[in-house]
Amino acid sequence: MKNPHSVPANLRRRAMLAGSASAAIAVVGCKGMAQTPPAAPVAAANGAKPLPAYVSWKDPSALIVHSAATVETKRSVFGSSVVTPTSQLYIRNNLPAPPVEITADRDAWEVNVEGVRNPRKLTVADLKAMGLDTVTMVLQCSGNGRGFFPSKPSGTAWKVGAAGCVVWSGVPVRDVVAALGGVTGGMAYMTSTGGEKIPEGIDPRTVMVERSVPVEAMADALLAWELNGEPIPVAHGGPLRVIVPGYAGVNNVKYVKRLAFTAEQSPAAIQQTGYRITPLGEKHKPSEPSVWEMAPKSWINSPLPEDGPLRKGGVVVQGVAFGGMHPAARVEVSTDGGASWKRARLIGPDMGRYAWRQFALNTTLPAGTHTLMSRVTDSTGRVQAETSAENAGGYSNSGWRAHGVQVTVA
Amino acid sequence: MKNPHSVPANLRRRAMLAGSASAAIAVVGCKGMAQTPPAAPVAAANGAKPLPAYVSWKDPSALIVHSAATVETKRSVFGSSVVTPTSQLYIRNNLPAPPVEITADRDAWEVNVEGVRNPRKLTVADLKAMGLDTVTMVLQCSGNGRGFFPSKPSGTAWKVGAAGCVVWSGVPVRDVVAALGGVTGGMAYMTSTGGEKIPEGIDPRTVMVERSVPVEAMADALLAWELNGEPIPVAHGGPLRVIVPGYAGVNNVKYVKRLAFTAEQSPAAIQQTGYRITPLGEKHKPSEPSVWEMAPKSWINSPLPEDGPLRKGGVVVQGVAFGGMHPAARVEVSTDGGASWKRARLIGPDMGRYAWRQFALNTTLPAGTHTLMSRVTDSTGRVQAETSAENAGGYSNSGWRAHGVQVTVA
Repeated sequence: MKNPHSVPANLRRRAMLAGSASAAIAVVGCKGMAQTPPAAPVAAANGAKPLPAYVSWKDPSALIVHSAATVETKRSVFGSSVVTPTSQLYIRNNLPAPPVEITADRDAWEVNVEGVRNPRKLTVADLKAMGLDTVTMVLQCSGNGRGFFPSKPSGTAWKVGAAGCVVWSGVPVRDVVAALGGVTGGMAYMTSTGGEKIPEGIDPRTVMVERSVPVEAMADALLAWELNGEPIPVAHGGPLRVIVPGYAGVNNVKYVKRLAFTAEQSPAAIQQTGYRITPLGEKHKPSEPSVWEMAPKSWINSPLPEDGPLRKGGVVVQGVAFGGMHPAARVEVSTDGGASWKRARLIGPDMGRYAWRQFALNTTLPAGTHTLMSRVTDSTGRVQAETSAENAGGYSNSGWRAHGVQVTVA
Repeated sequence: MKNPHSVPANLRRRAMLAGSASAAIAVVGCKGMAQTPPAAPVAAANGAKPLPAYVSWKDPSALIVHSAATVETKRSVFGSSVVTPTSQLYIRNNLPAPPVEITADRDAWEVNVEGVRNPRKLTVADLKAMGLDTVTMVLQCSGNGRGFFPSKPSGTAWKVGAAGCVVWSGVPVRDVVAALGGVTGGMAYMTSTGGEKIPEGIDPRTVMVERSVPVEAMADALLAWELNGEPIPVAHGGPLRVIVPGYAGVNNVKYVKRLAFTAEQSPAAIQQTGYRITPLGEKHKPSEPSVWEMAPKSWINSPLPEDGPLRKGGVVVQGVAFGGMHPAARVEVSTDGGASWKRARLIGPDMGRYAWRQFALNTTLPAGTHTLMSRVTDSTGRVQAETSAENAGGYSNSGWRAHGVQVTVA
């Protein structure tokens, strides 16, 4: 039912590349040399929008291309191995990604650390000598689930696939801060600035990617250079990305060039008025809650309506569940649209409080149509909401009712 | 120092494919259709042996090609994210891999389950309805480390890279057995038969891949269809592989077509005389220990001699450690050739008893040459051996002394 593909994703991708209409994919140099992305986008097989050039190395059969800056993972391809392969991971950029050349010498990338007793410019090589830790976390776009809000807020209509569970390695921010003498007094925020090129002739604050999170979030934050066992691709923020586990995607600033402890939140529009939970029909205001900590959320990835009618007999209902800031402790599954619930098993490795857990429930469904839903409870007893409040930006939809799926048994 | 590549692995791979001398890589069909691997092997950039066609989708810069059946992961590319990306995972085949067409309809693949009360032929679709679990484990070739034995036993001279830590999902064998009425009395072994095509005109037993493990190993075994979040590529045993966590690679039979509970071990040569711990200079005998459970082992992946002279100042020594059948509990690092030891930190997610753990030690090395070693102790107190006994097949080398590395500080 799931994963009906006859050939491994990599082979399929290779085939796409070899067989694309634009056979003249840029031939680039040997490893270690600066290289350029291919000029031509890679066409998907089914006539869907092609992958943008800067992520042409991803698996087109796993992804839904909304735009050059927004690419979603198909619900049907989430496997049951906890970690989302990088080739299938969603993309959301607020500005165009920098050229791949910024990874020509990864260890030379520089970040300014400010708001500490001894502010310094540090290279990635410096950071690599300071410490190492690894964290698994749900990376989720603030707008994931927007497509389930009845009011159809503007912005990408993500369903479940603007999220993945991935592994980051780098140096703990707290180790860097300790080496630089500690945070200066009175600093309430950790503010990260992205290394994107700002278009000329406009006030940088209107477009720059600069996000502030409460300084307490420093405790588990990393300056990361590795994603899922490989150097971070530029598309995902390499050579260096701030990772703030438990916080929505936008706070994990890519190609970070400045990490500053600040008394106030960034003056950038993306912080002041963007990514705020604003009542429907109103304009964003800095006084409203920022999209920071994620809420408990779960969803079912199998079976799905697109699998077609299910065979009679047993079925394993499976999906993913996370708590945001606290571990997922318990998952329930309903096969009757939320009227009754059965406890599912949490299966596979527990990769820590910021990771998602896989869940599974063996059950039997009679012939007919069934609405399947899942609901997670975190370790503090907080239960996934039935419905998330609509808001102008369409952010933070975690309601279990909207995430349900309808399947038919033959 | 590590991962000096300027461009993401996937981009590099794409570049290799696009730029290879054989630009006429077979153009194959759309997803869901049977496809053929490319006719021409993919050339590595540096003049090394090209990747065999059936694994041409792997990252050539991450791998050392010994032969068509033996491909090793470079020590320098093991990251610090616990899980080894499939594109970097080693390959060892005892017979040529079946054609990729065996995954044309993954759910239709059949396995005969025998030695149970109600023996049955089951499809992968049947298995998917029976249960689901996920296990992370070290997959390691029995001969990993052979290249460190002074006697230079015949066989591939693997160093550390015939191993990886990967995630498998499938149905627990115990669930399948329970559904079929339980194991027949008197069965002491679980015997798995691979789906390779046996050359005509020879006694199948001389070449067939059929391995037996003690029936107790069933407890944590899976019939797996997923590797690292994607359907298992044929090169790694898809559509269905027996996974016996803690047991050396050869026992995890690929493209499994028969799972039988048996009173005796398989009559196949690979079981009777192959993969036995045999004194140097003697012939393998069935009475000798089979290569089954793995022993505690660890090694350092950074820094390495190939990084060149290290900068003065701090260095983070890092590597991987596992216990085989029990969790890694403690890792020590020596920077003076084993004369003294310091305790390293275990970092990142603990993915269960069969996975490896990442370890790291922040230290400072003075100018000069240093021999770095690591030594793991498992949760039962068993310590990684200083030296593994030489044996005719060059199997199971886990000695910490041989796995040391020499680095120089400028």
